[in-house]
Amino acid sequence: MQSVVVEDEVTSLVLRERHEGVVQLTLNRPKQQNALCSQLLSCLQSELDEISLDESVRVVVLAAKGPAFCSGHDLKEIQGRYTREHCVALFRQSSRLMMTMTRMPQPIIAKVHGMATAAGCQLVANCDMAVASTTAKFATSGINFGLFCATPAVAISRSLPRKVAVEMLLTGESIDAHTAFVRGMVNRVVSPEHLDEETMRLAMSICDKPASSIMAGKQMFYRQLDMGLEQAYQYAAEVMALNVMSEDAHEGIQAFLDKRPPHWRPA
Amino acid sequence: MQSVVVEDEVTSLVLRERHEGVVQLTLNRPKQQNALCSQLLSCLQSELDEISLDESVRVVVLAAKGPAFCSGHDLKEIQGRYTREHCVALFRQSSRLMMTMTRMPQPIIAKVHGMATAAGCQLVANCDMAVASTTAKFATSGINFGLFCATPAVAISRSLPRKVAVEMLLTGESIDAHTAFVRGMVNRVVSPEHLDEETMRLAMSICDKPASSIMAGKQMFYRQLDMGLEQAYQYAAEVMALNVMSEDAHEGIQAFLDKRPPHWRPA
Amino acid sequence: MQSVVVEDEVTSLVLRERHEGVVQLTLNRPKQQNALCSQLLSCLQSELDEISLDESVRVVVLAAKGPAFCSGHDLKEIQGRYTREHCVALFRQSSRLMMTMTRMPQPIIAKVHGMATAAGCQLVANCDMAVASTTAKFATSGINFGLFCATPAVAISRSLPRKVAVEMLLTGESIDAHTAFVRGMVNRVVSPEHLDEETMRLAMSICDKPASSIMAGKQMFYRQLDMGLEQAYQYAAEVMALNVMSEDAHEGIQAFLDKRPPHWRPA
Repeated sequence: MQSVVVEDEVTSLVLRERHEGVVQLTLNRPKQQNALCSQLLSCLQSELDEISLDESVRVVVLAAKGPAFCSGHDLKEIQGRYTREHCVALFRQSSRLMMTMTRMPQPIIAKVHGMATAAGCQLVANCDMAVASTTAKFATSGINFGLFCATPAVAISRSLPRKVAVEMLLTGESIDAHTAFVRGMVNRVVSPEHLDEETMRLAMSICDKPASSIMAGKQMFYRQLDMGLEQAYQYAAEVMALNVMSEDAHEGIQAFLDKRPPHWRPA
Repeated sequence: MQSVVVEDEVTSLVLRERHEGVVQLTLNRPKQQNALCSQLLSCLQSELDEISLDESVRVVVLAAKGPAFCSGHDLKEIQGRYTREHCVALFRQSSRLMMTMTRMPQPIIAKVHGMATAAGCQLVANCDMAVASTTAKFATSGINFGLFCATPAVAISRSLPRKVAVEMLLTGESIDAHTAFVRGMVNRVVSPEHLDEETMRLAMSICDKPASSIMAGKQMFYRQLDMGLEQAYQYAAEVMALNVMSEDAHEGIQAFLDKRPPHWRPA
Repeated sequence: MQSVVVEDEVTSLVLRERHEGVVQLTLNRPKQQNALCSQLLSCLQSELDEISLDESVRVVVLAAKGPAFCSGHDLKEIQGRYTREHCVALFRQSSRLMMTMTRMPQPIIAKVHGMATAAGCQLVANCDMAVASTTAKFATSGINFGLFCATPAVAISRSLPRKVAVEMLLTGESIDAHTAFVRGMVNRVVSPEHLDEETMRLAMSICDKPASSIMAGKQMFYRQLDMGLEQAYQYAAEVMALNVMSEDAHEGIQAFLDKRPPHWRPA
């Protein structure tokens, strides 16, 4: 946690900070409740694309500035550019971002301190893990604006029990951090003053693991989820056999047998 | 809640009541614990088919008369007409009803006050949402009669954690309303005297949303669940772009930006 | 519970005991924390293959000897035979075992008294049900040895909420029995002194059901899970119609109508 580099702090819609192997990306439209305008989506996409190729980044933390975490798509922008072309492009851009989050090798942890609504809730559900403070809330509230949260539905129906997801989507009502934890959408709930610390602790615990295993592992996890059981096991067995032949596994197993801590090669 | 129309109250196996946009269908074979004989299944199918085409109906509540909610298929009828043709027809009819429930545009809320067993438990699991009183119980107890609850398995394995579903199916033991809530099969548990009120409150909160968004939303929800992640996101992005161009979304977004309540066009 | 037959107690890596229709298979490498060496996997595969064909066996209990339940694959063996061929063969063997567990007609109940790690955790997740004592713990800790738990991921991502599964896989941290229960990976948690009794009670409750319904039911359960909703309902309707024509269902329904206990034909 010694080295902190902050880039573009004034102008960028997404702030980037780095603590060792952890990059924190912070949504930075606080006055607009971090609404996901096209430009913010583009910034986030660029950052993630760049990180995907940078093996020195081990974990991404997705945070947000201001009182809200993220209010979803930018209704003002949508209303101002109301053409079918624009809307199709916007939601494709958003879905592409979600797939990038899932497919990129580094795990992404959402750090949620406030309200996460609509596509903001989707961002959290679509992250690999999430830490929330007790002040966080989650809602797919598009229905209140005549806009069923279709893309968020993809993420929350895969993170929460089905009937809970349907209720959120059809009523637009929010759930608190504790309910989100109980239902499986967040991994930890902490008091606001411990949110940074707990998120960083989780991120650093992943940095302590060997890079190649984490990266290959995250990617195989989602791929096998889309398969039937037998195909998933066949695929996993091949991944496992490849993984066990890796330098990291060799060192890890040897260290275990030698009863010494492993020394992972740097990423 | 002013206008109440009750049809066919004496003879019908399914009672139909209407309060504004909410139609309540009540299983009406109380002495047979609302066992799902072919005729009851047909009545329910007709009602739902009719409602599917009636845009003035916004939400369906599925309730039941008498001490039990529903005891499942009618074993007496099965025993009396024991041919392969009859049985194949019966279970196809039942599965068709379940698919109608899932595919029809209006959300269906189960209002469960008593025992829901076998296909009765399936009915609840297959609804979009469920409100239960503390007196409700749920079991897939066919196994006690030598009849593994195969069709209920489809619904409960998609509403409950896998091992919980297996236990219910193999042991036939019931779970209470609280457990059903904790495990995700019902959305709310209330005292018996608040069951009507809480169910109606939930139904009315959906009636307050724009019709087209609810209807398109419910349908896309289940469709995307059967897809892999990438295909689901692509499909959802197209739905979202269509949805955002709708009259309702236009009004909703404008109202939001004008800081006024939206005025939805009547369904 | 009168007849107890213990075979090969000294030499075998898997002990076999029988109480009426329940066969308990006990992992028997206690000094190696029941690590799954190839030979143990082979023994387990043979036992399950044999049981699959023996209709007198109604339920399998999977238990383990010594302080740990199972520490996963045998790292010492892997390190000693470090060829791609060996590793591919090993993980294929393991995945084949998992598919056998899922496809065989008899339900398998894990009886977990201690630490279940990596493929040991996978064994539990892959069983149909699990009873744990308060002393049980579960972890997919391969990541600590540079070895992402890819094959365990298949099982735990289907037994636990997604974000919980990701956290276990990426951090390697263990969850206790209570958390495993709350999250759906085990069915019951009991004190260590009641573990045998509670597991046997659950197993015997399944022995009381008719054999053919349990066997056909378990198999259809997993098959339909890999299908889309409509296909699953179609398949289930066919199974149900076949099932209802069975001798057991005939007797069960008749007994129900006669208000007498059913007499199942012996398996």
